[in-house]
Amino acid sequence: MDVTEQKRQVGKYAAGLVEDHMTVGLGTGSTVKFFVDALAERVNNEGLNIIGVTTSVRTAEQAQSLGIKIVDLDDVDEIDLTVDGADRVNKNLDGIKGGGAALLFEKIVAINSKKNVWIVDETKLADPLGGFPLPVEVVTYGVGHLNTLFANEGLKPVLRTDAAGETVVTDNGNYIIDLHLDTIEKPVELADWLSKQVGVIEHGLFINIANRVIVAGEEIKILDRAN
Amino acid sequence: MDVTEQKRQVGKYAAGLVEDHMTVGLGTGSTVKFFVDALAERVNNEGLNIIGVTTSVRTAEQAQSLGIKIVDLDDVDEIDLTVDGADRVNKNLDGIKGGGAALLFEKIVAINSKKNVWIVDETKLADPLGGFPLPVEVVTYGVGHLNTLFANEGLKPVLRTDAAGETVVTDNGNYIIDLHLDTIEKPVELADWLSKQVGVIEHGLFINIANRVIVAGEEIKILDRAN
Repeated sequence: MDVTEQKRQVGKYAAGLVEDHMTVGLGTGSTVKFFVDALAERVNNEGLNIIGVTTSVRTAEQAQSLGIKIVDLDDVDEIDLTVDGADRVNKNLDGIKGGGAALLFEKIVAINSKKNVWIVDETKLADPLGGFPLPVEVVTYGVGHLNTLFANEGLKPVLRTDAAGETVVTDNGNYIIDLHLDTIEKPVELADWLSKQVGVIEHGLFINIANRVIVAGEEIKILDRAN
Repeated sequence: MDVTEQKRQVGKYAAGLVEDHMTVGLGTGSTVKFFVDALAERVNNEGLNIIGVTTSVRTAEQAQSLGIKIVDLDDVDEIDLTVDGADRVNKNLDGIKGGGAALLFEKIVAINSKKNVWIVDETKLADPLGGFPLPVEVVTYGVGHLNTLFANEGLKPVLRTDAAGETVVTDNGNYIIDLHLDTIEKPVELADWLSKQVGVIEHGLFINIANRVIVAGEEIKILDRAN
């Protein structure tokens, strides 16, 4: 089974967790795309009655084009289940997210969800967290100074640009600084420090959020949060 | 002397602190407006050679219309002196800012300034801090849920609207939630908690930022930070 097929399988598996009348958070990313496809299939074939809340403009567009009803987060009291991807996950089920630049809305949806499930492939498992730059969403005003602060702290910051060399702007109108750390030995402490910095809107460390991680592969593996 | 005249006097006094070739941070508010007027007068009459960095669109417009050269924060290495107002100041010279909805850019400019001077009138002195709602700049997405969280914490949140009843949008495209606390006994702890909340971009507690506070009145009073 190639990786694309594995992602499709895990997306389909996650769609099977959705129950009738649920409010479902829809994440962002290449694996989640297969989840949304499979969920739309259940909506259309089984008449599954759900409401979706999305974490990015592109997921909203995909879901709506497939016939999933999408509402604003503030139109629901709570989300029953959110399925999202992750860029890296450690053995505590804490992770790095934001490779797709949607970390802010992903985190807002996640903290308003009763249950969070991440679907990943095996290459995303890393303990300690590492091998993937940590995205930080930042205010555009004074970004050069914030970048200098990060550099002085040894955090190896790089302002994210797209293939054309243009600075990436998030759905919320901000920039992304990627911290090219080899490994993150103390994610809780780093998350805390980043939260306090003026100009930081949100960071890609998702601590104590995922309840379950589903790992794609020849066989699907389920990891549940310990506590 | 009426209050307007007192504000004009303290604005003029603060303009006298600016030296030739300085990079000057220009705050926002009714007292700062007089400072910018007086500073422009020095630029035009004395040939004072300065560069301004502003904290809001309206201060930028005022300064440029008066002939002060304005550059982006990222075009300067550091700001020599920032003069700003404050909504409340306690005896440690910590304060509440953001009544004018410019707290985010004000704080970014402040932390990139070698020296911060606040100009206020006597009604702004309050120990403990209180008598003025604490502004919190927040992401628009999911604002209802964040408001509920604040309410559950007893923080008496009110989403800021303008005279026409429209939700106020900041220069950065965000909303303001005002926390109608009677007094803030532990500003450091509250600032820390607010910083960690997902969806909070910045809060109006300015801790350990002002070096000097100049108080308008029949006689101008100078308060300097202890350490």
